[in-house]
Amino acid sequence: MRITIGDYLIERLKELDIRHVLGVPGDFNLQFLEQIREAEGIEFVGTANELNGAYAADGYSRSHGISALCITYGVGDLGAIGGVAGSGAEHIPVIVISGAPPLYAMKHNYKVHHSLADGDFENVAKVYQEFTACQVNITPENASFEIDRAILTALRKRKPVNIQLPSNITYLTIETDMEPLAPIKPSSDPERIDSALKKAKELYAAAKMPAVLVDMDVDRLELSELLLSWIEKTGVPFAAMSTGKAVLSEQHPSYLGAYKGDDSDPYVQEIIEHADFLLTVSPRFIEWNSGQYSVNLPQDKIVRIARDYVLIGEEDFEGIYATEFMEGILSHLTEGKDIKSIEKPEEELFEDNDEKELNHADFWKMIGGFLKEGDMIFGETGTSNHALMSMLLPEGSSYVGSQIWGAIGFTLPAYFGSLLADPKRRQILFIGDGSFQVTAQEYSTILRHRQNPIIFVINNDGYTIERYIMGMKADYNDIASWKYSRLHEVMAKDSKIITAEVRTQKELKEALKKAEEAKEGILIEVHLDPEDAPKALKKFGPTVAEFNFGERGPSQEVPD
Amino acid sequence: MRITIGDYLIERLKELDIRHVLGVPGDFNLQFLEQIREAEGIEFVGTANELNGAYAADGYSRSHGISALCITYGVGDLGAIGGVAGSGAEHIPVIVISGAPPLYAMKHNYKVHHSLADGDFENVAKVYQEFTACQVNITPENASFEIDRAILTALRKRKPVNIQLPSNITYLTIETDMEPLAPIKPSSDPERIDSALKKAKELYAAAKMPAVLVDMDVDRLELSELLLSWIEKTGVPFAAMSTGKAVLSEQHPSYLGAYKGDDSDPYVQEIIEHADFLLTVSPRFIEWNSGQYSVNLPQDKIVRIARDYVLIGEEDFEGIYATEFMEGILSHLTEGKDIKSIEKPEEELFEDNDEKELNHADFWKMIGGFLKEGDMIFGETGTSNHALMSMLLPEGSSYVGSQIWGAIGFTLPAYFGSLLADPKRRQILFIGDGSFQVTAQEYSTILRHRQNPIIFVINNDGYTIERYIMGMKADYNDIASWKYSRLHEVMAKDSKIITAEVRTQKELKEALKKAEEAKEGILIEVHLDPEDAPKALKKFGPTVAEFNFGERGPSQEVPD
Repeated sequence: MRITIGDYLIERLKELDIRHVLGVPGDFNLQFLEQIREAEGIEFVGTANELNGAYAADGYSRSHGISALCITYGVGDLGAIGGVAGSGAEHIPVIVISGAPPLYAMKHNYKVHHSLADGDFENVAKVYQEFTACQVNITPENASFEIDRAILTALRKRKPVNIQLPSNITYLTIETDMEPLAPIKPSSDPERIDSALKKAKELYAAAKMPAVLVDMDVDRLELSELLLSWIEKTGVPFAAMSTGKAVLSEQHPSYLGAYKGDDSDPYVQEIIEHADFLLTVSPRFIEWNSGQYSVNLPQDKIVRIARDYVLIGEEDFEGIYATEFMEGILSHLTEGKDIKSIEKPEEELFEDNDEKELNHADFWKMIGGFLKEGDMIFGETGTSNHALMSMLLPEGSSYVGSQIWGAIGFTLPAYFGSLLADPKRRQILFIGDGSFQVTAQEYSTILRHRQNPIIFVINNDGYTIERYIMGMKADYNDIASWKYSRLHEVMAKDSKIITAEVRTQKELKEALKKAEEAKEGILIEVHLDPEDAPKALKKFGPTVAEFNFGERGPSQEVPD
Repeated sequence: MRITIGDYLIERLKELDIRHVLGVPGDFNLQFLEQIREAEGIEFVGTANELNGAYAADGYSRSHGISALCITYGVGDLGAIGGVAGSGAEHIPVIVISGAPPLYAMKHNYKVHHSLADGDFENVAKVYQEFTACQVNITPENASFEIDRAILTALRKRKPVNIQLPSNITYLTIETDMEPLAPIKPSSDPERIDSALKKAKELYAAAKMPAVLVDMDVDRLELSELLLSWIEKTGVPFAAMSTGKAVLSEQHPSYLGAYKGDDSDPYVQEIIEHADFLLTVSPRFIEWNSGQYSVNLPQDKIVRIARDYVLIGEEDFEGIYATEFMEGILSHLTEGKDIKSIEKPEEELFEDNDEKELNHADFWKMIGGFLKEGDMIFGETGTSNHALMSMLLPEGSSYVGSQIWGAIGFTLPAYFGSLLADPKRRQILFIGDGSFQVTAQEYSTILRHRQNPIIFVINNDGYTIERYIMGMKADYNDIASWKYSRLHEVMAKDSKIITAEVRTQKELKEALKKAEEAKEGILIEVHLDPEDAPKALKKFGPTVAEFNFGERGPSQEVPD
């Protein structure tokens, strides 16, 4: 059969059950947007700018497993790249479709708008080559092959990919049998996987104190269920890295707590660092999830599962794939271990006092009571992320943050994208004022689509996370003063969202009650002191300053 | 003397009379922001995000000649790159200072936040290498040399440059004599410039119908005064490209009008294409300033001045610099030419009718009466830019747009930056609603700094420029509905800005009167029909569709 290149790509997106293509229209992608408009079961959903679009696509992918973003050449590509790189860092697959100038203009080096007007059309592609797992430039000749290659790479590597689609060829037809996309699921080399499992089994048989360490790739490689089954079968305890928060339930009896090197609770550190069998999936230690690189794992006792290889101690087994290997673990390493019961640290008491002005400590304890089973929780970089990191989230909840990339402003558009993908799940956003302003437009997109959000805006007059690193009172950490609880009056048409401003425990209690009942969503503006912060952040700031600025750099005293 | 690396850079910025460093704080640049805070006569001014910061720095440079932007690693670098590339396309020098991870972390490939956590610190620098004229990575050893090299390149090439400044070395001291920055002003090869001037003189002597064609580089290479002197000395007429709009006065008696190939007024096209001596400075023809590449210049009669060479006919004279050559033209090509008087097209009449609903045709005619001598006028990509392109601007006015890069959302932050650099000049912004939403945060920054703006927001429910290209009624061209005239109520603290909403000629008249008297600025929200557009845009849309989508792509009928 013959099919247009645009429709071919649309069919592939529909096969992945992508029902919304996020992005921003521009003159080089309008023809593809027309094709989406004509297609059944898929629609284009605009964001106010491309960076927000990229974050929204990331959020959509967090809920749906993969997503698509459509932008225009140059201006759009570079506007989005910060968000796309973030998806790369966080291992989130996003299919970035760049509407490019007509093929003849690129081939013959025309000077065009949305470029440097020097006939160079490689510079933009090079940028995407640096930050995606696969960058393809479509022609009629390579269209079906390269589109499939890009999409399969996104699925396999759980990373963003870029498909550059010239504006004048999407209506040209190509010959295709339109067989379903066959995700390349290579099977492991039989001898290698047997050898690896044998070695793992020996290590496990000898182990008295086995443990599991969870990072985000347990989720990204879709190993959560298998791993949980194994934990439940054997009784082996597990810790999670901050970057793997809530990937497995934090309410599970085998959950130890967060492991972050010397910043861990001592009993968690003890168990993980002295494990004599440590199962883990591609852990990535950066400054802030490793207690400033103080991680000290038992190197020769680690079974480290990666997407396409397994490392046991120092022995690298190539040609083994994660799911198969984890299935092997589940069926071969079955011996239950007599693990001593896990001592959990006691929760700090919450001092209930209606008239007391809110502070971070009390606010987050009250939020602890508000969160429910199954919630999807967005914690923006800054006070929110740090506070939520220190809380145990409910059974079945998920956590979304910009954990490696650390981009402020990420969660608001990501929250929009995630609600678009999964409107039925209760999703809750916690975001500070400085972050909110970065991508504030997408609040209006949330209202436009009547998504019934539950948003907490921590209004504390600026970048408190930065204040704790440097410049506690410096004006470079101040921002414009907005009235967040009134934005809907001017950024939406007839929004019925409820809003509240809270300064005391009593006001927060009332607002939380309203949130339970809100029919068209709620935004709660929480006033907190600029120099107050969650305990974890108070500790975090000075260590970052030390790492970043060194002995000769500036330093400051911060409140405990 | 010894000086810290941070202070060395600050001294260089102060030498360029840069009093404000724009940008966004982040943990890898806070130590440099501390150094700025400690310095006299220079301050950091924050924008809400990095893309807006880059646009603001572009605007600052338009008013001041050069500017500085300070951002953090990865997230900040990639957030800003779209704006920085725009400055590259428009030939605007901006010194982009990227606070990077500590040198030891980059040297030893640490996994850090704000990166892909894979130890790669070259990917971000590579992006900047593609879109700036000079990208340098500072170490204590190379600091003074590389900082100077980057700044001098920005000055010489009139393009952005990137200085990557690791967070842990800005407080280290280096030895320097701190001699003033010596801009490399190379002098031309004497024989080459004599030969070029001789050839130009011969061509000119034989010419009966000489002419000048102005593009943006006349401004960027600071040739406006010299060129104007020559025009006045000889009486030679000049046309301007859209991308060179108002670089020389559009009220000048020798001004012919806009030259854009077959889209020119016939008499302008006739004079430029049949000139027997055509003086021009690095003209760059893209689709929209060339009547879709219908330019037909008299190739063997062109004297084409570039920054560091001159092309006369097909003969390329290397080693000649623009200012020197233009001075030579001014002193050697002095013969007045008997040029026939210039016929200007008649202005269309404006039908004064108080109760008439505003349309684009009438709105822009009324704006014509509002603009004054010396105004700096910002025309956002879309209806505003197209309308202003068709108007003759007042004596001494300047025009700012994203003429090559064509980024929507550019002008609002650029306007903020330009007002910061030159608060005394009357500056006026015309921007559509779709564009406003892209970078809306910076409206709050304008209000925060009490800049007394004069802003016209064309509220026409979406991307009208896109509608005329494709999807006149398609919902992908719709946007969220905002109340622009009320934004100050929620995006600022105690703003005294006046606002107005206008739908009729009478309301606009009253609003324009208020604008003349406004003490703390005015925002006028102008309601226009989504399917109405300036005449130039109505013509532009279908030609873009034809260029972009080709014969097999979609097409639509649009109203005349």
